Parts: sequence; structure tokens; C-alpha cells
Amino acid sequence: MVEIEFNARQIADILNGTIEGDENAVVTRFSKIEEAEPGSLCFLANPKYTHYIYTTKASIVLVNDDFVPQKPVKSTLIRVPDAYKSIAILLDFYNKLTEKPKGKEKPCFVHKRAVLGNDVYIGAFTYIGKDAKIGNNVLIYPQCYIGENVKIGDNNIIYPNVTIYHNSVIGNNCTIHSGTVIGADGFGFAPNEGQEFVKIAQIGNVVIEDNVEIGALVTIDRATMGSTTIRKGVKLDNHIHIAHNVEIGKNTVIAAQTGIAGTAKIGENCMFGGQVGISPHITIANGTKISAQSGVSNNVTKENSILMGAPAFDIRAYHRSYVHFKNLDDIVKRLEKLEKLIG
Amino acid sequence: MVEIEFNARQIADILNGTIEGDENAVVTRFSKIEEAEPGSLCFLANPKYTHYIYTTKASIVLVNDDFVPQKPVKSTLIRVPDAYKSIAILLDFYNKLTEKPKGKEKPCFVHKRAVLGNDVYIGAFTYIGKDAKIGNNVLIYPQCYIGENVKIGDNNIIYPNVTIYHNSVIGNNCTIHSGTVIGADGFGFAPNEGQEFVKIAQIGNVVIEDNVEIGALVTIDRATMGSTTIRKGVKLDNHIHIAHNVEIGKNTVIAAQTGIAGTAKIGENCMFGGQVGISPHITIANGTKISAQSGVSNNVTKENSILMGAPAFDIRAYHRSYVHFKNLDDIVKRLEKLEKLIG
Amino acid sequence: MVEIEFNARQIADILNGTIEGDENAVVTRFSKIEEAEPGSLCFLANPKYTHYIYTTKASIVLVNDDFVPQKPVKSTLIRVPDAYKSIAILLDFYNKLTEKPKGKEKPCFVHKRAVLGNDVYIGAFTYIGKDAKIGNNVLIYPQCYIGENVKIGDNNIIYPNVTIYHNSVIGNNCTIHSGTVIGADGFGFAPNEGQEFVKIAQIGNVVIEDNVEIGALVTIDRATMGSTTIRKGVKLDNHIHIAHNVEIGKNTVIAAQTGIAGTAKIGENCMFGGQVGISPHITIANGTKISAQSGVSNNVTKENSILMGAPAFDIRAYHRSYVHFKNLDDIVKRLEKLEKLIG
Repeated sequence: MVEIEFNARQIADILNGTIEGDENAVVTRFSKIEEAEPGSLCFLANPKYTHYIYTTKASIVLVNDDFVPQKPVKSTLIRVPDAYKSIAILLDFYNKLTEKPKGKEKPCFVHKRAVLGNDVYIGAFTYIGKDAKIGNNVLIYPQCYIGENVKIGDNNIIYPNVTIYHNSVIGNNCTIHSGTVIGADGFGFAPNEGQEFVKIAQIGNVVIEDNVEIGALVTIDRATMGSTTIRKGVKLDNHIHIAHNVEIGKNTVIAAQTGIAGTAKIGENCMFGGQVGISPHITIANGTKISAQSGVSNNVTKENSILMGAPAFDIRAYHRSYVHFKNLDDIVKRLEKLEKLIG
Repeated sequence: MVEIEFNARQIADILNGTIEGDENAVVTRFSKIEEAEPGSLCFLANPKYTHYIYTTKASIVLVNDDFVPQKPVKSTLIRVPDAYKSIAILLDFYNKLTEKPKGKEKPCFVHKRAVLGNDVYIGAFTYIGKDAKIGNNVLIYPQCYIGENVKIGDNNIIYPNVTIYHNSVIGNNCTIHSGTVIGADGFGFAPNEGQEFVKIAQIGNVVIEDNVEIGALVTIDRATMGSTTIRKGVKLDNHIHIAHNVEIGKNTVIAAQTGIAGTAKIGENCMFGGQVGISPHITIANGTKISAQSGVSNNVTKENSILMGAPAFDIRAYHRSYVHFKNLDDIVKRLEKLEKLIG
Repeated sequence: MVEIEFNARQIADILNGTIEGDENAVVTRFSKIEEAEPGSLCFLANPKYTHYIYTTKASIVLVNDDFVPQKPVKSTLIRVPDAYKSIAILLDFYNKLTEKPKGKEKPCFVHKRAVLGNDVYIGAFTYIGKDAKIGNNVLIYPQCYIGENVKIGDNNIIYPNVTIYHNSVIGNNCTIHSGTVIGADGFGFAPNEGQEFVKIAQIGNVVIEDNVEIGALVTIDRATMGSTTIRKGVKLDNHIHIAHNVEIGKNTVIAAQTGIAGTAKIGENCMFGGQVGISPHITIANGTKISAQSGVSNNVTKENSILMGAPAFDIRAYHRSYVHFKNLDDIVKRLEKLEKLIG
């Protein structure tokens, strides 16, 4: 880890907080309150953890403004309106202190007809294809492939080993993690007379709007015709599969290993757990929440539904049925008993 | 998108169709009939969409020979025996107009003992190992790794960032998408006395026959001994896992995120949905269809079975059981009522 | 395959076995007993296969010391205490005959502040970042990315196209297969007032201890703070997702496509089947076995539990319930019959 030293005064200034204790207390790392050592900065937001504050060895603890200690506290306190949010601000501040790479590392391959913006980093062994256009303030780490005619906006971070096929379009302020593949062919085949499958050419593309974050080893396939579209603010975890011609609505969040089949249309502000499966050609209403490992095979038309199961239905109903499923052996015995009684 | 202009005459010639309307009508893109604009080419195959043809702004619409308009149509029509198949032919024609890359881009690494065929493209940063043999008319995009002694046939396309381990064998006319890993070690470990697992060396290989298409981020592990084998015409979607010593039969099609465990033998002409799991050492009969997210843990001996569930059984029986599962709360209440009545 | 010739004498010497038959019998490959040809070496460990030994064309068969043939055997036999283990020893011996690559292949990128141990192989197009430290006897194949300040111990093998983000720590004697991504950001976002999600910087790292094997296309995310930790002797199959701040206990073995959500703590000596899902923030006791495709959403506190289902419970209870689930249609008919009788 990069070692950086802050004292309580500097932290209070960043967070607009007030110090209670030694304003020269120094910290060199973030820790959980229950694991903190001298030199640790930690925070107390969840009341469940309050008791740790009287024994923690942390040098500095961020607390909410309304925190009233019941016993003496040894650590220096910094009071802020929201300790949980403050830690996110500090993490971000810390993260930004890391020096970002810049310039073109050699050897890289930039086609003579590619266009690069200002303040762009092109890592070694990265390939920028013909007519690709890269915006300003973009980091493209080593070993990435940016295909022909790809358009990438401003302020994007593309980690090593990402592959972006021809004609893909990426907006601004996006982050794409390693190993992800954008724009591979959709899975389109038509059977011929001999039970063989013949490929249907996939000539569409992928469009990713602004503020999208894509995890590691995700696939987003190009459309057969038209575009596979990831709307503004979508967050995708690792190992997700987005098939051809899918649309993911604004600010939807999808956990790892979920698969969305071809031409499905997912609404805005949805939340899907891990390992969820969505059938092809269906529509999922805005605000739908789907429990991990569930499979949705029909349209979800009611907004803000919460679903579970395969095929998925209302989560409370699922849990009720599942309790009985666990007891089925008893239930069947009760039935047998009645059968004997009635004869 | 590459912009290409066709007029109705050229399209009719490619498809052997007959024109009804302006043979000089010009199109520059494919569209869906409901989204078409002037300059669009679209098709009408599904009767459900027939009503759009009277209002579409498309310049040209492909229709089946037997289409009889009920109202005036503004677009130029091209009549063909099968409008749906014609669009696939045109997509393919369009796709082939794209100029293919060729030659060796610098820098790449080609071992002096590797052998390259004619008309081969080796992208920048691609690695071709010792004694590897690449056939004619093969495209290997940037950043691929072709290990020692790998044999690749003719007319293959290998997209960026593909890894093919030593001794793998690929047939002709195959396509492999980005990030896919062929020939990594099978998952073979034996426990020792100390509850540790000791690796069993994996000295087999992977053999992929002709006309196979493999999606992005697929793994096909090498055999412990012998070969993991993908037969002719198999189509694999993204994120699929094929373990060591598996055999996938001819023309089988597998959807995304499915996993096939070690030494399983899958028949010909099977179709598996997404996220399916197949247990190790089992055999699946020809023509078996498995619904998404199902798990198969025993041999499937009857050909053309259609299965669902985990463990999977007949799909109609599964659906019947699942309807009752959803109603279990009611069913149990009915049982309770009887119990009370009988006392 | 690399062709290597052994005779019975050499094999007996490696295994400390005794020869019965021609000590000059020569083999050039390993085969299964039922598929063996002249020139094959095979083994007989499972009594189920004993009958093959009287008809096999194998030149040499390894058998257990106590094997008593019931009919004449044509192959040369080598008697060893444990034929199954002997084959693993031979596979390993054979594997080690393969010449390992060495030195720095050109072009590669090694930052001037990176430190390399002795007998290190750096493949072409591999990137070693600032302050990275690589131990002795390490193979890093082509096209890998080793980020800033990564520490890698001794005797590791890192296959092509692996990405290891900054600050990750890898122990000794580890193997990492192609396409795997270690240290990408954890999936951490907090909603703001406008239903958008704001990224929480992920400033922790990944720590992998000794003797760990990681399959192809695995992701292990960095911790938000602190470390995501993979303990000594863990074996991970392909396509596994390990989220931020997870800990995997010593000698635990996990099959392909399993996902472990954030901050889950997995015990020692656990075995998980493929496509298992583990919920965030839960603890799984030592020795827990989880059946393929199961989902665990609560703490498992009892050691050596065997679980199945989603949510998972005791595997025998699951199987009992599932048998009734398959019969639910009949069960409901029996209930209806009673209702008619009584009602």
C-alpha cells in the first residue's frame, strides 16, 4: 500500500469536521474499528459497533455529530454529519493521491488514422485501431484492444486486457475492468436442412452511455442489427453476460455472474442479485429487484416488484412456499395419516 | 458503422428477388420495420408485424413471395421466397464487404520454428510459439497467445486476447471470440494425508473440430490424459466452462454461462439453455434439450428428452410440480382444514 | 504431444516397482486401459476395470501389488503399492520433462524500479509495473500485466493474459491460469439522492498465500479497505468470482462458476460444487460441503455440514423434499380425493 500520513487537522479540514482530542494525532491507514491499531483511522456509523470505541487502539475515529460517549474514549474523535459518507469521501481523496500514468508507453500500436484526445495514457502493448477516436483524459492501460472505428468519450478508465470490438461507442466517465469483452458477436445461428447451424452475421454494435462501471470479465455482445445499449449510470459486477440487442435501463445495478439473454429489455433503477438469469425477448419493469440465482422467464410489468425463484415470482410468496418445501416430508406423512384414517 | 449504399436492383440481384416499385430506391442501413427511416432496408417475415408495412418509412422492404398487401404500400418491395433467410444472406454479404486485415503487424512474436500458411494475419502483440502450425487464410487478431505445438487449420478467425495452450488442435472454419482460454489445466487434485490437495499433472490436450464457433470468455480445459473434444459444428456462447476430458457431440448448441464438469459426454444435436450445470462423468443422449439454470446429475439415456430443474427431470412434469410449489401455502392450508375436520 | 519413450525398467525405477514380463517393453504415451494400443502405458486401480487387463493391447500396465490375474495377461505388468497414485507420480515426472521457458523475451516491459529474482521467465508483451517484486524461479508467460507494487513470491507459474492489479501479494508455489484478474475494484457503490450510484473507492488489496492454484478466467476483487485473502492450499476452478473482503480458508476447494459475495468468510477444508452462490457477510464453518448450484444465504455454524438447495439446507433433507416435489401433482390429487370424500 502507498503509505500516506495525515493528521487530525488535515482530515477535519477535508471533511469540514470538528476535532475532539489531539489535532496532531497521525494516521497512516484505514482500518475497521474492531481491528484498529495505533496509527489507524476508523469510523463509527453502525450503533452495533459503538462498544468498540471505548477499547479501540485507533488514533482517530470519525463519529456522527450526535454521538454521545458513555465512557472515556482514548482516540481523537472527528465529528462529522455522516461518518459513513465521510469515509467514502476520504477513500476517494486517498485514491486520487495515487499518481495516474500518462503518455504513450512503448511499444504500443496506434493506427495512423486513430485520433487521440489530450491527456491520454496508452499503456504498452495496447492496440488502437483504424479510425478509433479517444476523448480527453482517458487512461487505457496495457494490453487493451480498441477496434476499428470505436468511439470513446472523455474521462474514461480502461484497465489492462480489455477488448473492445469495432464500431463500439463508449460515453464519458466510464470505468471498464480487466478482461472484459465489449462487442463480440451475438449468439445468432439458424438451423439448416442438415441439422447444422449457420451463423447470422452480427453487424450491429454496442453503445455504452455515461457514468457506467463495468467489472472484470464481463461480456456485452454486439447487436445483430442496431445496438446493444447500456444506459447512463448502470453498474455491472464481474462475469456478467449481456447478449445481443439487450437494453439495460438507467442506474440499474447487476451483481456478478448474471446473464441477460438476447433482446431482453431491462428497466431503470433495477437491482439484480448474483447468478440471475433473464430469458430472451422479455421486458423487466423499472425498479424490479431480483434475488440471487433467480430466473425470470416472463415479462415483469409491475414496477418495483421483488422476485425470487426459477421461474421467479413474488419473494414473500417464494419464501412461504420454500418453508413448506423444506417440510414436504412431514406434509406428505400428514396426508398419509389422513388417508389411513379415512381409509 | 461502415456506410454502404445499395439500390433495389442490386439487392434483388443478390437475392434473386423481384422488385415492386422503384428499382433505384437507395438504402444505407438495416433496420427493424417498426423503427425504419428513409434509407432503411427492412424485412417482413412474422405476420404479427404485417400492419407496420403500411406505415413504415423504410425505402425498401423484403417480403415473402406470397405477401398480398391489403392497403397501399409506399416502400419499394422486393419479393423473395423467404424474407427471413434473405436478411441473413444480406447480413452476411454486408459483413463480407468489410476489409479483412492481413500480414504481420509489428511488433508480434513468431517463433522461428512456427509455420504460417498463406494469407495469414498476425495482429500486433500476438505470440506464436515453438512448432505451432497455422493454416491458410487464418486471422489471428492482436494479443493472442498460441502456445507451443498448437495446430490451427484453415479459414479460422481468432479475435483479440485469446489464449490457446500448448498442444491444442483446432480444425477448419472455426471462430473464437476474445478472452477465451483453450487448454488450461483440468481441475485435478488428489488429497494427501494432511488434508492438502496435490496437483495431478494434466498432460492431455484439447481438440476442436471443424465449423465450431466459441464465444467470448469461454474455458475449455485440457484433458488429464487424452483429449477434451469439441466435435464438428458445435456452437458455444459466452462464459461457458468445459472441464477436462469432456466430449461435446456434433452440432450441439450451448447457451451462455453453462458449465460441463469433467469427463461428461454430451451427445449430438443437443441444446442447452444458459447457466445449465452438467455433473461429472455422466452421458447425455443425442438431441437432449435442457432448460436454462437446470442441473443434470444423472445419465440421460432417452434421446430428445426435454429437461428442467435441479436435479432436472421432464420439463412438463417440472412445470406441473412448480405450479403446485407456488400454491404450497394453500395446499397446506387445505390439508390443515381436513385435519381439523377429521380431528 | 511431446513424444517421449520409456521402457519398463525406467518406469519401475521411477516408481520403485517390480516388473513382471519384458523389462524392455517400450511405451510412448499414457492411455486408458480400455483404449490402449501397443506403445501405451496404462494403469488398473478400479476393480470395475479389471476385465480389460486380459484383452488390453497396452504394452505396460501398472497394477497394485496385490493384483492376482485370473487369466493370462499379455502386457508387461509393473507392480506398485498404489497404481492410482503411481500414475499421478508418472504424470508429474512426464510433465517436468517439458522444457520450461526462461529469460526475458523481447519485447517485454519491465519498469526500471521493478525487481526480478533469479531464474525468472518474462514472456513477450508482459508488463511488469513500478516497484513490482518478482521472486526466484517464477514463470510469467506472455501478455501478463503485473501492476505497480505487486509482490510475487518464489516458484510461481503465471500463464498468459493474467492481470494482477497494483498492491496485490502472491505467495510461493502458486499457479494462476490464463485470463484471470486479481485485484480489480470491489463492487462498492452508495446511492445518492438522485437514485444514482456513486463509486466507493477500493483502496485495499488481494493477498494470496502459498500453494494456491487458480483456474482460468477467475476474478478476485481487491478489498475496499484491508485485504481479500486466499489462504494456503486453496484450489479454485475456472470462472469463479471472489468479491471484495472475502476470506477463503486453508485447503478449501471450489468448483467452476461459483460466486462468493462481499465480506463472506469461508472456512478451511470446505468443498463447493460448481455454480454455487454464497451471500455477502456470512460465515461458513470449516469442512462445509455445498452441492452444485446451491445458494447459501445464512451462516453455516456447524462444521462438516453437507448442504443443497437455494436457500441451501441439509442435503439428505433436500433430496427427500425434492422427491416429493417431483410427485407434487400426485400428492395434490390425493389431497383432492380426500376433500371429495370428506367434503
